[in-house]
Amino acid sequence: MNFSIVSYILSWILRFEAGFLLLPAFVGFLYGEGRAAVSYVGTALLCFLLGILLNRWKHSHFQLYAREGFTSVALGWIVISLFGAIPFVTTGDIPNYIDALFETISGFTTTGASILPAVEPLTHAGLFWRSFTHWIGGMGVFVFIMSVLPLMGGSTMNLMKAESPGPSVGKLVPKVKDTAKILYEIYIVITLLEIVLLCAFGMKLFDSMTITFGTVGTGGFGVLNDSLGSYSPAQQIIVTIFMILSGINYSFYFCLIMRQFKDAFSMEEVRWYLGIILGAAAIIILDIHDMYQSIGETIRHAFFQVGSIITTTGFSTVDFDLWPQLSKTVLVILMFIGACAGSTGGGIKVSRILLLFKSIGKELSLMIHPRLVKRIKMDDRNVGDEVLRSTFVYIAVYCVILFTSLLLIGVDELDFTTNFTAVAATLNNIGPGLEMVGPTQNFAVYSGFSKLVLMFDMLAGRLELFPMLIILVPSCWKKY
Amino acid sequence: MNFSIVSYILSWILRFEAGFLLLPAFVGFLYGEGRAAVSYVGTALLCFLLGILLNRWKHSHFQLYAREGFTSVALGWIVISLFGAIPFVTTGDIPNYIDALFETISGFTTTGASILPAVEPLTHAGLFWRSFTHWIGGMGVFVFIMSVLPLMGGSTMNLMKAESPGPSVGKLVPKVKDTAKILYEIYIVITLLEIVLLCAFGMKLFDSMTITFGTVGTGGFGVLNDSLGSYSPAQQIIVTIFMILSGINYSFYFCLIMRQFKDAFSMEEVRWYLGIILGAAAIIILDIHDMYQSIGETIRHAFFQVGSIITTTGFSTVDFDLWPQLSKTVLVILMFIGACAGSTGGGIKVSRILLLFKSIGKELSLMIHPRLVKRIKMDDRNVGDEVLRSTFVYIAVYCVILFTSLLLIGVDELDFTTNFTAVAATLNNIGPGLEMVGPTQNFAVYSGFSKLVLMFDMLAGRLELFPMLIILVPSCWKKY
Repeated sequence: MNFSIVSYILSWILRFEAGFLLLPAFVGFLYGEGRAAVSYVGTALLCFLLGILLNRWKHSHFQLYAREGFTSVALGWIVISLFGAIPFVTTGDIPNYIDALFETISGFTTTGASILPAVEPLTHAGLFWRSFTHWIGGMGVFVFIMSVLPLMGGSTMNLMKAESPGPSVGKLVPKVKDTAKILYEIYIVITLLEIVLLCAFGMKLFDSMTITFGTVGTGGFGVLNDSLGSYSPAQQIIVTIFMILSGINYSFYFCLIMRQFKDAFSMEEVRWYLGIILGAAAIIILDIHDMYQSIGETIRHAFFQVGSIITTTGFSTVDFDLWPQLSKTVLVILMFIGACAGSTGGGIKVSRILLLFKSIGKELSLMIHPRLVKRIKMDDRNVGDEVLRSTFVYIAVYCVILFTSLLLIGVDELDFTTNFTAVAATLNNIGPGLEMVGPTQNFAVYSGFSKLVLMFDMLAGRLELFPMLIILVPSCWKKY
Repeated sequence: MNFSIVSYILSWILRFEAGFLLLPAFVGFLYGEGRAAVSYVGTALLCFLLGILLNRWKHSHFQLYAREGFTSVALGWIVISLFGAIPFVTTGDIPNYIDALFETISGFTTTGASILPAVEPLTHAGLFWRSFTHWIGGMGVFVFIMSVLPLMGGSTMNLMKAESPGPSVGKLVPKVKDTAKILYEIYIVITLLEIVLLCAFGMKLFDSMTITFGTVGTGGFGVLNDSLGSYSPAQQIIVTIFMILSGINYSFYFCLIMRQFKDAFSMEEVRWYLGIILGAAAIIILDIHDMYQSIGETIRHAFFQVGSIITTTGFSTVDFDLWPQLSKTVLVILMFIGACAGSTGGGIKVSRILLLFKSIGKELSLMIHPRLVKRIKMDDRNVGDEVLRSTFVYIAVYCVILFTSLLLIGVDELDFTTNFTAVAATLNNIGPGLEMVGPTQNFAVYSGFSKLVLMFDMLAGRLELFPMLIILVPSCWKKY
C-alpha cells in the first residue's frame, strides 16, 4: 500500500467536503438557524484544516494502482461520511452519532434509509445537507473532484473504475477528466430542469431543490414526514419522470447530445430497463386497481413506486407495505434488478441481469446443440469473457454479502421479511423495505451493531462491492 | 430430438415403476388394506403395459447425446411422478390428483413437503409408498436402472450427469454401470444399518423402515403427525447421525471401502460440511438455550434440526418456526447451502459454495496483487475453468428460478416469509419452510397454480436445474 498517495487523495476529499458544508451553513444562515450555521461552518473548518494537514504527508510517486484506487475510494467515502455526520450531532438534529453516521452514509450512498421517525422537526440546514449528500453521492464525489481538478494525470482511471456503477466503465471520451466533466454537466442540466419544473408547478424552492437532489441522485430523502405523499399529482408525476430519467445510462444522454440518435435508441439496456418498468407497473396496476378511487390515481401510484424502486430512489407517495403480496413481490424483485449501469441508480443493474440471462441462454443452447459456436453480444458487440467472469463474481459476492448481513442482523431478532428487505434496501441503495422498515417506518428499530452492518451494506452497494471488501483483506495494507 | 431413444428409456422407467409399486401393494396386503393393495397392483399393471407399448417404438440408433440425456431424465422423473400419484387417488388417501402429484414429486425429489394436514389417517400402503419414493429418488431412479441393466453401452454418462448432484460427476470407477452398482451397494448397507439400529432401540419395523427411507434419501416424509417429535431421544439421535452421514459425498465411503483413508479424510468438501454443521449448531444452541429443560435436550434439538436442514431432509423434532429469528436465519441459510455433491442431499451443495468463496478470494487477491498467478484448487487439484463457469451459471439459473417462482406464487397473496421459504424449501428439496409452510403447517394453503410452480421447483432442484429448463426450450424438441 502506498499510504502517501491515499492520504493525498483523502486530503482532497476533506477539502472538498469543507466546501460542500458551506452550502447548508448558508441555508441555516438564510433561515435564521444560528446554531446550525455555526455547526456547519465549524465542521467545514475542521475538514479544511485536516485536509491541509494530510496533504503535508510527502508522496513519493503518483502511480495509482488498482489497490490504491479501490482503497482510496472506500476510505474516501468512509471519511466523507464520518465528518459529514458531525453537524447532525452538533446541531442537535440527530443527537446520537451512530444514528447520524447511518443517516449520512445513507445520504452519500443515495440509499435514503433513515433512522428518523419524522423529518419535519429538523433544521432547514440539516434537511438541505441530508438531500445535498444525495446529489454529491449520486454522480460520485471522486467523479466530481476529477471533473474540476487535474488530480494525477492518466492514472485516475482506477478511481473512476471503483466509483462508477456497472460491469464495465464507459469512458465517454478518451480522457477521464473530460468524461467526468461531461457527466457532471449533464447531471447539472437535469437537476436544474427538475427544479425549474417543480417550481413552475407550485412547489416551494426549498422543497423543489431538496426533492430534486433526492431524485437525480436516486437518493430518496424527503423533507416531509410522508415522503412525497402530500405533494400535488402534477408534482408527483414530474418526480416520477425524473426518477426514471435518472436511472438511464448517462451515455444515452451523451449520445443524444452528440446527435447519435441511432446509437442512443438501440441501447439494449435502456430498452430493457424501460420494458421492465412498463411490465412491473402493469402487474401492479392490475393487482391494486381496487385500492384507489380512480384508475388515474392507481396508474400514478404504480408508476411512481416502480420508478422509485427500480431506480433505487426510495421515495413513496403511498404506504406500499399495505399493497397486496404480488405487488410487494414485484417491488422486492425490482430492488435487486436496479437501474442501468452508468446511471446514478444502484442495485445489480439491468445490464448485469441481461448478461446473466444471455449466459443462461447460451448454456442451454450449447446443451441442445453442442457444436454450435455462439458468442454473447450486447448492443451488437461481443462481450468479452473477462466482463462475463466479473459479472458472475459480482453476483457471487453479492449473494455472500446478502446472506452474511442477514445472519448478522439476525441477532436483533426482528422478523424475516423486515431483515431481508432491510438488507435488500441498503445493499441496493433503495431506502425503505417492508414491514418494520416499510415506507412509514424507519431503521431506528435496529441495534447499533446491526446499523453498522447495514452501513457497510450501503457503502458496498454504492461502490460495487469490491472496494469495501478489499479494505477488509489484511494483505491489502502491507507496505510495498 | 431422437424421440425413439427417449421413449425407449421411458419404457424402462415405467416397467421399473411397476416393480416398485408392488412393494406398497404387499404392505397393503399385510395390513389387510384390500382396496389399497388392489390400487397399487392396478397401477403397477398399467405402468407395465404402457412400458411394453412404448418399447415397441422402433429406435434407430443408440447414441445418447446430452440433449436426449437431459430430456430423458426430466421426462422420466415427470412420468414416474405422474403414475406414482395415481394410487394416492384411487386408495382415497389423497383424493385430489394435483395434491397427490405434489406429494409424489415431493417424495421422488426427496423434498418431503406435504399438502397433508395429518399423515396418520393414511393407509400403511400409502405411508410406505410415500417414504419409498424418497429411497428411490434419493440415489436416483436412473442410477438404479443403470446399476441393474446393461442399458446402452458407454453412452449412459449423459444420463448419470443429468441425475447426479454436484458440479462435476464423480465416476468412482471407469464404467458407469459399475459406479451405479457401487453407489447402490453403499446406499443399501447404510439403509439396512439404520433400520437395524432403530429397531434395536425399540422402534417398530414399519416405522423404522419408512423413517430410514426418509433419512438416507434425505427426504423427510414421516409417518406420525409430529414428524419425529414423539420418538425417543435415542431414536432421534440415531436419525440425526444417519441424516448427517447421508449428506456426505458417497466417494468418501468409496475411499473408505478402498482403504484410501488419507484421501477420504482430506476431502475439503466433507470437512467444510462437518464444520458448517458444528458452527450452525453452536449458534443455535446459544440462541435457544433457555427454551428447553436441559442443555442435553437443547443440543439434541439443535443438531437434529441443523442436520435435517443442511442435508435437506426436513424432519423435525420441534416446531423450529417458534425459535428466535437468529436461529431461523441460520436454518434459512443452511437451506441454500445444502449437502455435499455426490450425496443424496439437495441444495446448492457445499462444494459449489466453496468454489464461490475461492473465486471471490482469487478475485480480491488479483485486485491487490495484479501480477499474481493463482489457480483455484480443490483437494489439491486445479479446478478447471469449465467447472468454475458452470458453477457460476448454475448460481445464476438458481437465482432466476428462485425469483421467478417467488413472483409466480405471489399471486396467492400469502406473506413474504411464507413464499420465500416455500420456494427455498422446494427448490432445495428440504420440505418445511417457515410461517404458513412451517414444520407444523403444510403446503395445502397454496392454489393449484402455485403448487405446479413449486412442483417444477422440486424437480428443478433435484435434477440440478438444467434438465427441467431444457425441456422448456422449443428448439430442444426439433427432430434431427
